[in-house]
Amino acid sequence: MDFSDNVDYGSLSPREARLLFREGLVRQTSGMCYGYLQLSMKMIPQRHAFDFLLFCQRNPAPQPVVEVLEPGVYEPRLLATGADVRTDCPRYRVWNHGKVTATVNEITQYWRDDLVTFFVGGSFTFERTLMKAGIPMRHNEENVPIPIYVTNVMTNPAGPFWGPIAVTMRPIRRSMLPRAIEVTSRIPSAHGSPMWIGDPQGIGIADIDKPDFGKRVTIKPDEVPVFWACGVTANMAIQNANLDFVLTQEPNHVFISDIREDDARFLNLPVIV
Amino acid sequence: MDFSDNVDYGSLSPREARLLFREGLVRQTSGMCYGYLQLSMKMIPQRHAFDFLLFCQRNPAPQPVVEVLEPGVYEPRLLATGADVRTDCPRYRVWNHGKVTATVNEITQYWRDDLVTFFVGGSFTFERTLMKAGIPMRHNEENVPIPIYVTNVMTNPAGPFWGPIAVTMRPIRRSMLPRAIEVTSRIPSAHGSPMWIGDPQGIGIADIDKPDFGKRVTIKPDEVPVFWACGVTANMAIQNANLDFVLTQEPNHVFISDIREDDARFLNLPVIV
Repeated sequence: MDFSDNVDYGSLSPREARLLFREGLVRQTSGMCYGYLQLSMKMIPQRHAFDFLLFCQRNPAPQPVVEVLEPGVYEPRLLATGADVRTDCPRYRVWNHGKVTATVNEITQYWRDDLVTFFVGGSFTFERTLMKAGIPMRHNEENVPIPIYVTNVMTNPAGPFWGPIAVTMRPIRRSMLPRAIEVTSRIPSAHGSPMWIGDPQGIGIADIDKPDFGKRVTIKPDEVPVFWACGVTANMAIQNANLDFVLTQEPNHVFISDIREDDARFLNLPVIV
Repeated sequence: MDFSDNVDYGSLSPREARLLFREGLVRQTSGMCYGYLQLSMKMIPQRHAFDFLLFCQRNPAPQPVVEVLEPGVYEPRLLATGADVRTDCPRYRVWNHGKVTATVNEITQYWRDDLVTFFVGGSFTFERTLMKAGIPMRHNEENVPIPIYVTNVMTNPAGPFWGPIAVTMRPIRRSMLPRAIEVTSRIPSAHGSPMWIGDPQGIGIADIDKPDFGKRVTIKPDEVPVFWACGVTANMAIQNANLDFVLTQEPNHVFISDIREDDARFLNLPVIV
């Protein structure tokens, strides 16, 4: 298998995709391994791991934790047997004191035995759920990164982690609004119900055409802006915490697991044998 | 207010109940402060707190965490402003190396600045949900402690915490079974769906008339035994971990919060001001 663009990335198995990344492929994971759960990753030094897990527990809407590994462990227990979190994402960021100091294809040389890996669910599962419900994604139609806004709604802090909640915005047709609320409220492991609907100023967004991250999208006359809590929240909390060292994956270059999206909610159920 | 039994404990406010406990009242909290969320508590030394929180994250059915306090903090942030977890339960246990070494009415003298308090949801909310759905509790009818069984289904371990899942058993009329499943599956913060229904041997229970804790109850011909994961699971995991020091509340003598049971699931939602 070569890395040329006539590979059908959507039908690769997660294992095949991870091996391609391990061998050096760099590309966004959207559109790859259709139907499998994709997750962002944060590797946090052990001495801050309790506080970060507590931050997640206190803020499940922006930060739904799916799996956490013990310090130094780089093979997922549930998400992908035999995988290696140090090499199997396409691209990583190295953070020092709240700033990105390197962007690399693998982090073996940066790995430390005190690093705790957090896998976090989110936008991938979320957007697929909306699209399955017949709700198109405007940022995809306009081929821009989704608009993200920093709100005036604060997270529940934990230890050094604090900051505002960031939200994504998707314009939804009025007729589809009940459906959008209904389907997303059923996936608490991927941001859940909308946090806000309608007037952007209600959550401190001054100008809907000037997102803090991503690009503006068109809101048509028969549409309302709908806002969901977003994983960028954790990035800001990590920056605010000013930890001396953190590893993450590069945005949009995430971990592809062996778990089907629809099975994500079953991951921590008791296993009867 | 005196401690005599003509107090209407069911209509006390949670704050009034907590003050009575602080002043020395000792009694089971069942039947007190009708409609308010009651929680069991574990106080775990900081160096094991990450592992215990991870144990909870990996085993949400037996161990649904509702609030966790920072090390040394004894006032809940969400559950009860102004309360003191060291004095406001009716009765506590002091554990050393996996054994109960003291049973006391308050733990101020045992308190340490490295203790992390975990509040865990469970049977209280759970049974009220079933009763509201018209499903009577046999152990209440027969006035015995609910039968609890140690199964052959294992928890997902974390750090030193490991062991089998314990389950409660409630006989449910065949006609009410769909209703019992439906209502409990909607309260993941209080054990959620049944873990097993029917033949006790399917989860390693040799004799339904010999529970490991509590007392046997009658199962009538038109009833099936229904098993739900139970918080005793964590007690066994803590014993297996053999920590040198842990504090808990005494079983059935739990923390009464200011939160209405129906509001428990809203506790960690974003707060828009």
